Amino acid sequence: MRLAVIGGVAAGLSAAARARRLDPSLEITVLERGPTVSHGACGLPYFVEGIIRSADQLVTYDAAYFKRERNIEVRAGVTVAQIEHGRRQVRLEGGEIVRYDRLVIATGAAGSKGIQGTEAPHVFSLHTPADAVRLRDFLVSSKPRRGVVIGSGYIGLEAVEALRVHGVRVTLMDHCGCVLGRPDDHLVSVVKKHLERFGVEVDLTRNVAGASELPADVVVVAAGMRPNVDLAAEAGIELGRSGAIRTDERMETNLNGIYAAGDCTESRHIVTGQPVWIPLGTTANKMGRVAGANAAGGRERFPGVCGTSVVRVCGLGIAFTGLCVSDARAAGFEPVSVRIEARDRAGYFQPRPVSVELIADRRSRRLVGGTVIEERNPIGRINVLATALAGRMTVEDLLNLDLAYAPPYAPVWDAVLVAAQQLAHQL
Amino acid sequence: MRLAVIGGVAAGLSAAARARRLDPSLEITVLERGPTVSHGACGLPYFVEGIIRSADQLVTYDAAYFKRERNIEVRAGVTVAQIEHGRRQVRLEGGEIVRYDRLVIATGAAGSKGIQGTEAPHVFSLHTPADAVRLRDFLVSSKPRRGVVIGSGYIGLEAVEALRVHGVRVTLMDHCGCVLGRPDDHLVSVVKKHLERFGVEVDLTRNVAGASELPADVVVVAAGMRPNVDLAAEAGIELGRSGAIRTDERMETNLNGIYAAGDCTESRHIVTGQPVWIPLGTTANKMGRVAGANAAGGRERFPGVCGTSVVRVCGLGIAFTGLCVSDARAAGFEPVSVRIEARDRAGYFQPRPVSVELIADRRSRRLVGGTVIEERNPIGRINVLATALAGRMTVEDLLNLDLAYAPPYAPVWDAVLVAAQQLAHQL
Repeated sequence: MRLAVIGGVAAGLSAAARARRLDPSLEITVLERGPTVSHGACGLPYFVEGIIRSADQLVTYDAAYFKRERNIEVRAGVTVAQIEHGRRQVRLEGGEIVRYDRLVIATGAAGSKGIQGTEAPHVFSLHTPADAVRLRDFLVSSKPRRGVVIGSGYIGLEAVEALRVHGVRVTLMDHCGCVLGRPDDHLVSVVKKHLERFGVEVDLTRNVAGASELPADVVVVAAGMRPNVDLAAEAGIELGRSGAIRTDERMETNLNGIYAAGDCTESRHIVTGQPVWIPLGTTANKMGRVAGANAAGGRERFPGVCGTSVVRVCGLGIAFTGLCVSDARAAGFEPVSVRIEARDRAGYFQPRPVSVELIADRRSRRLVGGTVIEERNPIGRINVLATALAGRMTVEDLLNLDLAYAPPYAPVWDAVLVAAQQLAHQL
Repeated sequence: MRLAVIGGVAAGLSAAARARRLDPSLEITVLERGPTVSHGACGLPYFVEGIIRSADQLVTYDAAYFKRERNIEVRAGVTVAQIEHGRRQVRLEGGEIVRYDRLVIATGAAGSKGIQGTEAPHVFSLHTPADAVRLRDFLVSSKPRRGVVIGSGYIGLEAVEALRVHGVRVTLMDHCGCVLGRPDDHLVSVVKKHLERFGVEVDLTRNVAGASELPADVVVVAAGMRPNVDLAAEAGIELGRSGAIRTDERMETNLNGIYAAGDCTESRHIVTGQPVWIPLGTTANKMGRVAGANAAGGRERFPGVCGTSVVRVCGLGIAFTGLCVSDARAAGFEPVSVRIEARDRAGYFQPRPVSVELIADRRSRRLVGGTVIEERNPIGRINVLATALAGRMTVEDLLNLDLAYAPPYAPVWDAVLVAAQQLAHQL
């Protein structure tokens, strides 16, 4: 039995490693277009900022590691030209044929779609380690004074901070009116005010068509992300409404024996039950594991995501999970929300402010989403909410949670419990 | 309608405040034996250590506050001699009668039961603000060199740290063989080694009968905690097997119209379904809210606890929830456990070690407990596990959780997910 995997980053390598674990005899080949494998986009802004010193640190493992430790053949720098599923083979550029019995598509996503002028020498993207190296070299050698970051997603927000560290006066632009793709006015206003306090200009209703025409010495394009689905679509693989590859819960596409995982693939939103496209490294790894297990003959399922996100913006942690009020209403819920301000520890342990918003459905009393904004540990509280969403908990379930308390770590009434109590009064 | 509450600390005041919120016309009287109300035991070790400077900070609110802001009559320094439920009245020492229609018993717990010599001038307990003031004064004025702390619960472990800050060479003693009441050998060995690294001697199999006979200049007795139930028992209120007051889910005792809450009361363990006595400030507050709501005519229920605990021991956060392996076996589960060592952040953000143990039941694949040991943020991960226990999640539910990821806060595979994956392989 032969398994081929197209794509050698998060999802592809997770799939290959999991398949190997379940089936030691499988012949596994990973085909990666770029020059390196096993790099994540997540570290790139921190390389630009300088927290990651060496570009070597951006790559976790190399092909030799996979051959030696996992008996997985990883080929970097090869481009798949066509999937010929009738013959159970892929054709590489140059004509070489790679045969398979099972195939995992993990072609990821790419940005800058719809933005002109990205080839100008002062315009950069942040998809690959090479991109990050180019940008940092430019920042160090050309010392640009005015910068624009296009795109208010993770990479865009983190790039703003990286440019600031290099002394660049930055403007953040997007046309969507939101941050991290979330149409939540309060969240937008918190992030905007926080960035402005750090001297960053923010314009979230600006439709940038040409990156090279902006009045800036350096431009980072972190917008226009789209799933890479051309190869799949040409092979007759069905796409969902989001434009990403549609799969069942086992990560199998409409073509028997072809699985898909990662940023090129839809997942199911566990609150709405609807397909969504939320490209994230953690999700890619989880999908990859399930795709790899099933490609190796397993029977595993991926239940879906609730859109949990966290980003650090100039020292402030912004986290959310599930639906915001407008998304909840659009999904047919009757959203009721509360927002509270609290502290992250007992009063005598130098507490810092915590802001928690909870959104529940009036009819079912179920939690449908939440936001946590705090400096030190936003993931602790947002992960409790993400777990509560997975457990389909009501507001009453939430306010009775037996959360940990000790003065150095938490107040006696955790902010999540206080917010749940207030929400219960309003339902 | 008149509501009387016996006990003016966590549970009693939560009950009174909640009853007031639901019924503005209720006549509410809180009877507290001590000289102050609204103080928690949680702050006492930190006052002794010096993190809390002034004894005023140990008391959150005073009687005048409750009168003015909540229209609740709080009487400190009065002792209830008898509950005469036939007449719907309590008799105070001195003979005064306080009438009620509904009664909440929140008489708390007390320590030092079974330990002799506690009246010696160098022997202290840590139940009230006055105890903490006495101990700190003694440490400052007498500069003791050798100290013994009896009791390996929260207060004992925190007292060890407080004495060390005052330059005392400390021995921690208990006879139970465990820390925080958990019969978990690995946990005990981690805490023991960590304390020993800080120069603390630890003897957890020492049955101390006489506090004043120990070779020490100062002794802190933080053991022998028992629920204060004499008043309730004499009135014919049923106790559970744990010795604490037994109630239904609405916190009502066997005597109609009498509720109980807080450290004098049993709760239900949500993993085993069995009654347990786990006295904790957070639980006391939650029970108090429910007792107060129902005493005011509401229909609320308290689902129970899973024993979530966290304590900081010389800079290390020790947290657990649910059952340990031996408790799980005793409760009729077939426990399977894994323990992993991981990191709390991405590799380039100065990660610190995290240790996670997960315990699941082989038959149902349900999570039944877990332990988290880390320096910075033990509550984030333990609260995810506590939420998963409340949601009766399986190991598969756990490993698919959509937890937050960003390099400054977490690694791409959170330690909880890694542990869940490993546990799934073993089930």
